[in-house]
Amino acid sequence: MKKKIKKINASILIIGNEILSGRTQDKNVLFITNWLNSKCGISVKEVIIIPDEEKTIIKNILYLSKKFNYVFTTGGIGPTHDDITAKSISKAFKLKYEYHKEAYSILEKYYGKKKFNDGRKKMAKMPRGSKLIYNPSSAAPGFITKNVLSLPGVPSILNSMIENCKKYLVKGQKIYSKTLNLYTVESSISKQLGSIQKKYKKYVDIGSYPFFRLGKIGVSIVTRSNSISKLKSVNKDLTKLIKFKKIQTLKI
Amino acid sequence: MKKKIKKINASILIIGNEILSGRTQDKNVLFITNWLNSKCGISVKEVIIIPDEEKTIIKNILYLSKKFNYVFTTGGIGPTHDDITAKSISKAFKLKYEYHKEAYSILEKYYGKKKFNDGRKKMAKMPRGSKLIYNPSSAAPGFITKNVLSLPGVPSILNSMIENCKKYLVKGQKIYSKTLNLYTVESSISKQLGSIQKKYKKYVDIGSYPFFRLGKIGVSIVTRSNSISKLKSVNKDLTKLIKFKKIQTLKI
Repeated sequence: MKKKIKKINASILIIGNEILSGRTQDKNVLFITNWLNSKCGISVKEVIIIPDEEKTIIKNILYLSKKFNYVFTTGGIGPTHDDITAKSISKAFKLKYEYHKEAYSILEKYYGKKKFNDGRKKMAKMPRGSKLIYNPSSAAPGFITKNVLSLPGVPSILNSMIENCKKYLVKGQKIYSKTLNLYTVESSISKQLGSIQKKYKKYVDIGSYPFFRLGKIGVSIVTRSNSISKLKSVNKDLTKLIKFKKIQTLKI
Repeated sequence: MKKKIKKINASILIIGNEILSGRTQDKNVLFITNWLNSKCGISVKEVIIIPDEEKTIIKNILYLSKKFNYVFTTGGIGPTHDDITAKSISKAFKLKYEYHKEAYSILEKYYGKKKFNDGRKKMAKMPRGSKLIYNPSSAAPGFITKNVLSLPGVPSILNSMIENCKKYLVKGQKIYSKTLNLYTVESSISKQLGSIQKKYKKYVDIGSYPFFRLGKIGVSIVTRSNSISKLKSVNKDLTKLIKFKKIQTLKI
């Protein structure tokens, strides 16, 4: 009997004009995809970056939450006028946008009653029924609404919160990967690589990525699979190819 | 009579498993958005990152090319099996996927007849009627098909080619921007910032972004507009607010 492979996928919705204007280098995609892959066995299948516009957020939340097991949003959960993620998610799912009791008391305690102004209070407003993703670095919590996990845009704060997402996620099967770094050019091995990919089509993904290092050019061959044994077989075939072509490899 | 403002927009489609697997930090979004904004007056309104899958590429090309003035694709135009951007765009637009004469001769000349193997020849195949985007660093050209400009994924090569996209683009109105860096927290000024944004709703975008520098926290207020005079007015209002709140500013 075949063991059923549990494949869990996710998508990321980056909400923020600052990424689209060329002002800020996004770092959250790399961090979240890496964490989901390595810690949760969850593959990210799509990332969308959009401006802080309510209509656009609603449309993309509905699209991604239907299509993938999980949606991670980043950005737009702070205290200012352009922070409209929580309100937009409420509208998308037709849920009341209201104070979350626990979030309110966390923030009130953090700022003190006197300094707990309207902007700060706003960070306690979420779609009804959301659960909190605690924030160890700056108090204001993220939240999960249905299958949508909402995190802040500032990378250092997001990074500090990511482990608190774990309890809401069903883990997928671990994805194993191996990288071979070769001193060759893609077009010298593309034909053989194509045949090897064909042979392992169902089990292994093979990617090939040019690199430049210390004035030399090379190619990284990345193999990824849910099965260790298939990963070993494909790398045996690759090693044969490397020997046959007399290609130098590089350890990194 | 009101002068009609020419607003030109664009989107970016990043094609590459390596970005979604958490292996590679994307740098092309920042570079392209920045270039389009500052050199062409073109605003990027959406970015989508997808895996190297034909169906997904076709669907997104059709969606984005209909919705925006221009679509930039990055990745998937090399010589290996996972380079399927050109073929997928051909299918999306129902155009023949065939050798581009000039691209073929550029590549044949670059590699020499003897070393011009099938993988390398593949890089000369494009949707019928495409025009070339010349590549000064590694010969293999990008191409424009209808309103879709296809560039490689390797940032250094992409960067070297970007100026060659210019002749295919209609320029939009220049977008001006000004940044104020303040030693304050977002929630101290969120209310006033909201009112100022309301006042300039139609003309100026105001974004607020927390920063951490040398152990101090602050907020960057970014204002962006097509109109220099509106940008000046909004910054006058912001300066009043800063003085009133006795906020220290930071020159960067």
